[in-house]
Amino acid sequence: MKVSIERSALLSAIQNVQRAVSNKTTIPVLSGIKIAAEKEALKMTATDLETGIETSLPTHVDNEQVAKIMEEGAIVLSARYLSEIVRKLPHSTVELEVKQNYLTVIRSGTSEFNLHGLHAEEFPRLPQVSGNQMFSIPSIVLKDMIRQTVPAVSTEEIRPVLTGVVASLKDGHLRFVATDSHRLAQREVVVEAPAALSFSNVIIPGKSLSELGRLLPDNDALVDVVIAENQILFKFAQTQFYSRLIDGQYPDTSRIIPTAFKTSIRVGTKLLLEAVERAALIARDNDNNVVRLNIKSNQLEISSNSPDVGKASEMLSPAQFGGEELLIAFNAKYLIDALRVVEGEDTTVEFTGSMSPFLIKQPDNAGYLHLILPVRIY
Amino acid sequence: MKVSIERSALLSAIQNVQRAVSNKTTIPVLSGIKIAAEKEALKMTATDLETGIETSLPTHVDNEQVAKIMEEGAIVLSARYLSEIVRKLPHSTVELEVKQNYLTVIRSGTSEFNLHGLHAEEFPRLPQVSGNQMFSIPSIVLKDMIRQTVPAVSTEEIRPVLTGVVASLKDGHLRFVATDSHRLAQREVVVEAPAALSFSNVIIPGKSLSELGRLLPDNDALVDVVIAENQILFKFAQTQFYSRLIDGQYPDTSRIIPTAFKTSIRVGTKLLLEAVERAALIARDNDNNVVRLNIKSNQLEISSNSPDVGKASEMLSPAQFGGEELLIAFNAKYLIDALRVVEGEDTTVEFTGSMSPFLIKQPDNAGYLHLILPVRIY
Repeated sequence: MKVSIERSALLSAIQNVQRAVSNKTTIPVLSGIKIAAEKEALKMTATDLETGIETSLPTHVDNEQVAKIMEEGAIVLSARYLSEIVRKLPHSTVELEVKQNYLTVIRSGTSEFNLHGLHAEEFPRLPQVSGNQMFSIPSIVLKDMIRQTVPAVSTEEIRPVLTGVVASLKDGHLRFVATDSHRLAQREVVVEAPAALSFSNVIIPGKSLSELGRLLPDNDALVDVVIAENQILFKFAQTQFYSRLIDGQYPDTSRIIPTAFKTSIRVGTKLLLEAVERAALIARDNDNNVVRLNIKSNQLEISSNSPDVGKASEMLSPAQFGGEELLIAFNAKYLIDALRVVEGEDTTVEFTGSMSPFLIKQPDNAGYLHLILPVRIY
Repeated sequence: MKVSIERSALLSAIQNVQRAVSNKTTIPVLSGIKIAAEKEALKMTATDLETGIETSLPTHVDNEQVAKIMEEGAIVLSARYLSEIVRKLPHSTVELEVKQNYLTVIRSGTSEFNLHGLHAEEFPRLPQVSGNQMFSIPSIVLKDMIRQTVPAVSTEEIRPVLTGVVASLKDGHLRFVATDSHRLAQREVVVEAPAALSFSNVIIPGKSLSELGRLLPDNDALVDVVIAENQILFKFAQTQFYSRLIDGQYPDTSRIIPTAFKTSIRVGTKLLLEAVERAALIARDNDNNVVRLNIKSNQLEISSNSPDVGKASEMLSPAQFGGEELLIAFNAKYLIDALRVVEGEDTTVEFTGSMSPFLIKQPDNAGYLHLILPVRIY
C-alpha cells in the first residue's frame, strides 16, 4: 500500500472513526484503525465490536485531487499513535507506505515515522447490514432526537434494555423513548419511509447514539437508516455508522404517561432552568438532589434545603397557570436534563398530584415529552 | 454585616482568593473565604496556611459606586458554595447580610440563599509581613520569571528545598533558579531596589509561584515584593499574596553551569520544539522519553525509537553551527519544557560532549538559561 493524502482530510477521517476504538480492549487489533487503499478511495475503519465506523476518503472531491493511491493495499495502525502523529505532522501532505512485516512509513516534510502495523486480515469485518427496513431522516432532526432522549437512558446494567433508546416506526412516525425508571424521555417525528414500513422494540445502545450524535453534521442532509436483525446502520456523508442492537423486550411505556392533569403551568424555559440550577446547588449534597416546587396561582416557588449547608428559594411568575395549587418535590437533575433539551422559549409542565409523575412539554412541539417521577417529602 | 455589591466584582474577587483555599483541609474554617466589610472596602481572604490571598474591593472605583457597606462586620462562608452560587445568581447586584448564628442571606433578584457561616474570629490572621527588604518588579516580568523557572521545580518531597524556586538579589539583579537535579532553569532581571538591598537563599514554594503567576496581570504595573523571615509578600492591584518560605539551604548551582562549550547550534525555536514534540510521541512509552540529537555541520537529526511502537526521525538545518559534531540523548520533556518558555524566534544550544550537561539560551536575552543533563545511550 502506498498513498499520498492531505493531512487535514486524513486527520478528520481518523478523528471520526476513532470514536469506535475501544481504549480498554485486550485484542490488539481493536486498538487500531484499518486503512485500506482502494482504487478511488482510502477507507478508514474502527470498531469495538459494539459499534463500528467506516469513513471513505475519495481521491477526488469536487474534481480536485485530495488523495493519490500509488499502490492498493491495507494495514492496521494503532489509533492512538496514528492520530497523535498525524495531528503534529509538519507538512500539509502525508505519505503512507507499507513495507515488509507491516512496517508502515509515514512521511511529511522532513519528518518520517516508522510504525509497526498489524495485518489487515486480522481486523474484524463490519457486519453486512442490508434489507428493506430502511428510512431517511435529516441529520439535524436525528441529532435532536438523540440529544433529547439519551440523557434519560439508564446507566445501570441491571436491566440491559434500559441502557438503550427504543425506536419504533408506524405510519411514518418515528419514535425514540428512553427511561431509567425514574424519568422518561420521548421524541417523535415524521420521517420519509415506505408506507408499509413499521417496526418496534429496536433497542439502540445509548452510548452508540451519543457517539453518533457527535458525528452527525448540523444540517438537513438525509441520513439513511437500515435496520437488520441485530444491527442498525446509519449512512451519511462518507460515513457508515454501525451499532449492535440490545436483545430483549423493552417495557411498554405508553401506559405510564398520564393523559389528564390537575395542575398546569407555562413558564419561560430559561427562567425555570436557571432557578432549578440555583436551587440544585444547595440540594446537591443530598442523596437525590431534592428540589421543591410550590405552585400557586400567581407564583411558583422553587426551593431546596440542606441541613449542613443552608437553603435556597426563589419566586417565578408563571406565564400561565391552570388547575389546583400544588407542592411537589423531585430530583433536580432530572428537570435540569429535561429543560436543557427543550427547544422553545416556553415550557409547559403538567401535574396530576404530589405523588404522580409530571410531564414537561414544548407548547410548540407535540413530539417532545419528558416525564419525571416525584419523590416523597415529609 | 450588610453589604450590597456588583455581582461581577464579587465573583472575580472570590475567584482570586479561592486559589488559596485548600480542597483537602480538615479544618472547616480553611475551606471558607473570610469576607470583612470595613468602612470603605469589602475584604476577601483565603489561606491554606502555606499561601494566603487577600483582595480588597473598594466601595468606589473611578468615582463610581460598586459596593455599599450598610453595616460593617465579618463572616466566613464556604468557598465552594459561595463561588458556585455567586456565579449563577440572576441579578447584576448581590446583597449579603449576616443574621443570627452566622446565618448569611445572599439575595439577588428574586433569588435568596441562606448559608451557614462560621465566626470570622476563627479564621487565621494572615502574617504581618513588614520590613525594609522590599523591591518592585513589573507584573509581566515577574510572571515571565515564574513561567520560565517553575517547570524545573522538583515534584518530589525527598529534598524539600528543590520543590521551591530560589530567589536572590545582588546589585539590583534579581535571579530565580529551579532544579530537580535533572535540569535547571535560571532567569535573571534587573529590578528597582535600594542599592544596599541584597538577599540570597529565599526559597519560594513552586506551587505558590504557579498560583501567583495565574493571578498576576499581563501588564507593566509594579508588584511590590516584601521579604521577611519566613514569609514573602507580593502586593499588586487590590491584592496581597503571601507565601511561606521553605526552610533549608538551597544547593549552590553556579558551579554546575558550564562556561565553555565544544559544539554550538542556533536554530528556529518553533522548528526545534515541534520536531522534538514529534519525536517524543514515539519516545513517550520509554521510561525516560529518550530522544536523540545527531548534530552535524549542515544538519541536525532528531530521532527516537521504541521497540514496540516504531521510530521517528527528522532533519533540521541549523541556522548556525560551530565546533565538533555530536550525538547526544536526553529526556524530551526537559527540552520541550525549556523551548516552550524561550521567547525569541531563535534558540542557541551549547554542548560540551555527549555526557555533559547542555545549555539552552536565548541569543537576545542573556538572562534566560536552561540546563539539561543528557542520558547515556549504548
